[in-house]
Amino acid sequence: MGTVEWVETVERLIRSTQELLWERGYVGTSPKAIQAAAEAGQGSMYHHFAGKAELARAAIERSGAELTEAAEQELAGPGTATERIVRYLRRDREVLRGCRMGRLTADPDVMADPALRAPVAEAFGRIRARLADIIAEGKRDGEFPAGLDPVATAAAVAAVLQGGYVLARAAGEDDPFELAVQGLVHLLEGVSA
Amino acid sequence: MGTVEWVETVERLIRSTQELLWERGYVGTSPKAIQAAAEAGQGSMYHHFAGKAELARAAIERSGAELTEAAEQELAGPGTATERIVRYLRRDREVLRGCRMGRLTADPDVMADPALRAPVAEAFGRIRARLADIIAEGKRDGEFPAGLDPVATAAAVAAVLQGGYVLARAAGEDDPFELAVQGLVHLLEGVSA
Repeated sequence: MGTVEWVETVERLIRSTQELLWERGYVGTSPKAIQAAAEAGQGSMYHHFAGKAELARAAIERSGAELTEAAEQELAGPGTATERIVRYLRRDREVLRGCRMGRLTADPDVMADPALRAPVAEAFGRIRARLADIIAEGKRDGEFPAGLDPVATAAAVAAVLQGGYVLARAAGEDDPFELAVQGLVHLLEGVSA
Repeated sequence: MGTVEWVETVERLIRSTQELLWERGYVGTSPKAIQAAAEAGQGSMYHHFAGKAELARAAIERSGAELTEAAEQELAGPGTATERIVRYLRRDREVLRGCRMGRLTADPDVMADPALRAPVAEAFGRIRARLADIIAEGKRDGEFPAGLDPVATAAAVAAVLQGGYVLARAAGEDDPFELAVQGLVHLLEGVSA
């Protein structure tokens, strides 16, 4: 097998594991299912990864990188702090599938393994820090009141997104997610100058 | 076996299933584990419940009733709308275990079965409706501005709680939950008269 095929196989293994973890959780993601979804043989999978745990870690790291990259697309754009945060909250999302990273926090196997939890913690840490920076910018520009705590407000923004997914999945429809985002946006606009 | 023993056995079966669903999810909750935790025999379990799905439904309904009852304890108390909501958000919670109901929304088996998802949807629906009533009261009393949408604000409050659990579990500490609640409370106080 040439280098290109190797890279492509590793790529398919990681992508398939990302999807399976999202859909079925760690315990429901068998090496056989990964191999079938990736169209890779057992030997090929174990040639590239020591086992399911190592592959899961690579998949979770990839999901974390994609999550922060997608957030950055909205947050780095033009506009006031509120506009950028609203754009981030309102970008198209597959609401009923939930957040790839957020759902892992309910997965007992992922939470019990420090190596699997670390990339989840890092991804949310990065997004909260980025949101806090933007809110601090908004304070400096006089957009937000001096008393607003950037770190706490950033945590509320990230929590509304993650909780919005939970409420939407419970209801079986997008509506509660949209409502929660709308409620937070109105509060943010309400305290803005 | 007398009636008292029967009632006690059913009670232990339901309580054990609630705990196991919370800790291990539906797929990780075996009839054997339920029987062991409940100190009930296999015959006893199947005498009272047709199977794991029926017992899980009873356990989820019980968790839903307990969730709304606990919310009502804070929400029905004295004080302004903001005070009651803040008390609800800040009541003691086992943050790192997450919400019994919220975590079920990440459980593919629970979400895939309409009979198991229904009590989850109902519990969150009741809490959101109750929060919306209190916010509408606060508007009538002049505590909140006329433009505040009670239904959307209620969804944001419920989402911050659920998302706070997600962020805390990701981080492995209570801190992000406390921050998210604090951030939302400051926004609510910021728009209040």
